[in-house]
Amino acid sequence: MNEHHTMTLEALARAIGARLVGDASAEVHRVAALDEAGSGEITYCKGRRFRNQLVNTAATAVILAEADLEHCPASALVVDDPYAAYARAARILHPPRPVHPGIHPSAVIDPSAQVADSAEIGPRVVIGPEAHIGDHSIVAAGCVLEEGASIGEGTRLGPNVTIGACCHVGHNCIIHGGVVIGADGFGFAPDQGRWEKIPQIGAVRIGNDCEIGANTCIDRGALHDTVIGNGVKIDNLVQIGHNVTIGDHTIIVACAMIGGSTRIGSHCAVAGGVGLAGHLEIADGTQITGMSMVAHDLPAGRYSSAIEVQDSRTWRKNHARLHRLDETIRKLRQEIAELQKKLDEE
Amino acid sequence: MNEHHTMTLEALARAIGARLVGDASAEVHRVAALDEAGSGEITYCKGRRFRNQLVNTAATAVILAEADLEHCPASALVVDDPYAAYARAARILHPPRPVHPGIHPSAVIDPSAQVADSAEIGPRVVIGPEAHIGDHSIVAAGCVLEEGASIGEGTRLGPNVTIGACCHVGHNCIIHGGVVIGADGFGFAPDQGRWEKIPQIGAVRIGNDCEIGANTCIDRGALHDTVIGNGVKIDNLVQIGHNVTIGDHTIIVACAMIGGSTRIGSHCAVAGGVGLAGHLEIADGTQITGMSMVAHDLPAGRYSSAIEVQDSRTWRKNHARLHRLDETIRKLRQEIAELQKKLDEE
Amino acid sequence: MNEHHTMTLEALARAIGARLVGDASAEVHRVAALDEAGSGEITYCKGRRFRNQLVNTAATAVILAEADLEHCPASALVVDDPYAAYARAARILHPPRPVHPGIHPSAVIDPSAQVADSAEIGPRVVIGPEAHIGDHSIVAAGCVLEEGASIGEGTRLGPNVTIGACCHVGHNCIIHGGVVIGADGFGFAPDQGRWEKIPQIGAVRIGNDCEIGANTCIDRGALHDTVIGNGVKIDNLVQIGHNVTIGDHTIIVACAMIGGSTRIGSHCAVAGGVGLAGHLEIADGTQITGMSMVAHDLPAGRYSSAIEVQDSRTWRKNHARLHRLDETIRKLRQEIAELQKKLDEE
Repeated sequence: MNEHHTMTLEALARAIGARLVGDASAEVHRVAALDEAGSGEITYCKGRRFRNQLVNTAATAVILAEADLEHCPASALVVDDPYAAYARAARILHPPRPVHPGIHPSAVIDPSAQVADSAEIGPRVVIGPEAHIGDHSIVAAGCVLEEGASIGEGTRLGPNVTIGACCHVGHNCIIHGGVVIGADGFGFAPDQGRWEKIPQIGAVRIGNDCEIGANTCIDRGALHDTVIGNGVKIDNLVQIGHNVTIGDHTIIVACAMIGGSTRIGSHCAVAGGVGLAGHLEIADGTQITGMSMVAHDLPAGRYSSAIEVQDSRTWRKNHARLHRLDETIRKLRQEIAELQKKLDEE
Repeated sequence: MNEHHTMTLEALARAIGARLVGDASAEVHRVAALDEAGSGEITYCKGRRFRNQLVNTAATAVILAEADLEHCPASALVVDDPYAAYARAARILHPPRPVHPGIHPSAVIDPSAQVADSAEIGPRVVIGPEAHIGDHSIVAAGCVLEEGASIGEGTRLGPNVTIGACCHVGHNCIIHGGVVIGADGFGFAPDQGRWEKIPQIGAVRIGNDCEIGANTCIDRGALHDTVIGNGVKIDNLVQIGHNVTIGDHTIIVACAMIGGSTRIGSHCAVAGGVGLAGHLEIADGTQITGMSMVAHDLPAGRYSSAIEVQDSRTWRKNHARLHRLDETIRKLRQEIAELQKKLDEE
Repeated sequence: MNEHHTMTLEALARAIGARLVGDASAEVHRVAALDEAGSGEITYCKGRRFRNQLVNTAATAVILAEADLEHCPASALVVDDPYAAYARAARILHPPRPVHPGIHPSAVIDPSAQVADSAEIGPRVVIGPEAHIGDHSIVAAGCVLEEGASIGEGTRLGPNVTIGACCHVGHNCIIHGGVVIGADGFGFAPDQGRWEKIPQIGAVRIGNDCEIGANTCIDRGALHDTVIGNGVKIDNLVQIGHNVTIGDHTIIVACAMIGGSTRIGSHCAVAGGVGLAGHLEIADGTQITGMSMVAHDLPAGRYSSAIEVQDSRTWRKNHARLHRLDETIRKLRQEIAELQKKLDEE
């Protein structure tokens, strides 16, 4: 949950690097949508498609691009990229709650663990031997940090997060509730009809400025570490297999599944429900649209394979055709070839 | 886990609004399947397809429709809708365990939280400032209710559930283990190759009589609340993005994924593994079959897009054809057009 | 996390049943990849495709098949199945951490629960009435075992695992963090536009030597138990519905979804993201490739239905054709039929 601050437009414009046109002393305390913002609220205009909303806004101020300025009835904060500037303004007006340094008496902390004095350790937290908790971090209620686990400065763990033995989370990360980092990778060798477990002796290393969504799982590596770069944003219920590596500033949406040893480049976008097989190379900047399946390496580009719904009767017919597609096309070709032959013979 | 009660057929018939034909004083203590029920057990008959099982049942009593009565060798409870009546009978014979009011000494409860005297607060629960726990509710071991969170009367939380700050769950809900309600929505603005976090200042509001399955995640809204209506039933491992709204009595099966700001109407059925993109409008009463993908608004109807398995060799051939489908159809059309031309010229 | 042992090749060869060719007194302490292993490390050769790596390895020893022996520059442990033997060697060199018997003072244990003296009960664990904890087992921090739950000898539960009332986990299982076993199955009867809950009075029974991945959910049965056989390996974020039965030594990869009452045979392989509808029979030895959808019973075989990505422009065209496939094929056939007719008339 976030706090609410109040600021003058002058101070806010300065803070987000905007040119202020309007009432410098007017105050805002909340962000809101363009068509809903009122007095004391600041909003943004995404571009000319929203000019109708812009001319009618009741907001105290609007963050917008130069081109939209003449249509703005309110005070304006003029920037090159209104959406990014809006995000910055929102973070200033609604900062995360402050850290309350100290260790709750119900927390169980191994004497060999190092916990920064400026860190906040919530109720019922368990911190194992040789674990390390950085400055100004928050470890919420019920988290478990196993032996040798560590989190950097300013990192915040939600409730009931697990950081496995020897796994590391960098600075200024946000890990939401129920995340499990460092469970064993899924590695077994077939052995006379049984599955022989292969010990997973790697760990997980997560960079700085990452966000990881609720109940997401990131497995420890088999031999080497599973590695998540800097600025990576991962949504809820995502599965990251052992020895995956993910490059900086890549974004992975909910319910995606990344198979073991796959390497995803930097600045990629993996949409919701996408499945990547294991041992793939995905180039920097690759975009994969929702619910697609990837089973081969991908050079940079934009890729898709999901099918949109149709009414079920229509889909049933198309689906039946798809299930016989090879046979049908062979037959059509044959019929055409026979016609051609006949025609040529005449 | 549920209790077991014993009742006479007379009392049970009255309780579920059935007409009793048979031994009013016979007692039942358990529900069972039609082909497995024995003495002391009550079952139901789904319809004429199951008459073979009905004539052979060893159950003490059967809940059934008028049309099946003459084929029933046991006592009968005659109703219009046997399956719904069976559900009611099962809930009477197997009620949820009783609430044991009181606060476990290991729970950590902020002095400003309001906990009803009739509520049961389990071991290791953490309840934050200004939180509110309704009458006759159960908060199982390890749950975390953050600042300002609230649950209504008769609501039951399974182990290790998180209710985020200012999020609200209504009356008579069941929230299973590991659910995370109120983690941040997945909102970022691209900013020079990085992702700037957009604060998520909305909350989650869940109606009455809802059930939410294990490890499901419901994110808080960006500006407004994420809203789940009354009587909504959500299965395990479902992802509900920020600012989603779900209408009353809609059902969502496991592993479904609802993208941010999508509005699902009331009385909808979203099957397992379905993915809905964000910002969609799904009309009341819409049904979406398993593993389908939805990327456009849907008027009421029944929709599908998943493909059923074939043996892998057949599928490989059809798949190869699908990957060249546009090209292949163009070519077939061209060949047919050329034949037509030739034929016309002759 | 695993320990590290040091062993002579002689001892290790004996332990895994290999014929040693080379320096019996050389010591190894770690497994590593063939192209990365160095002094003190043992690796394995998957077969002739890897001979280039084999001839250049710097490993102290290599586990390999007879056919590769002549190409090995290091000491060799000759076996029939190098991968299975490697797994055994890895488990010997990197055994799981030892059990530290005892009950953490912060654990909350009902007086009627039976906890073996040789078991390790971590901080903040909650164990309900009549629960049973086997010898040499580990229950990590934050786990909740409800009334009558039980785990067998040598079983290890990761942090924040829930074992529901009356559910049973066998011997030598590994249950990773956040798993929820025994939440209610998803069973409701429609009743005048509402959903009437059907009590779930079965439990979950899990065999011996199973592994269950992080945040996976296995629901309790409606009337009978949900049953998982021996040696079953289930990955992270898998959904197992009520009354599912899974045969021995079947493997289920991440994010798969098994609908209620489906019976999966033994020695099956269900790949990641696969969805199985409910009430299906899947024969022993069946393999289902990633992200496939199964809606009918399957005899033994290998099955697929997922589509691999294409560049989004190409896919968009193929997708549009697929949505009109039935109509298009009808039309093509009609055109061909008309040509044939014309040709025949001439």
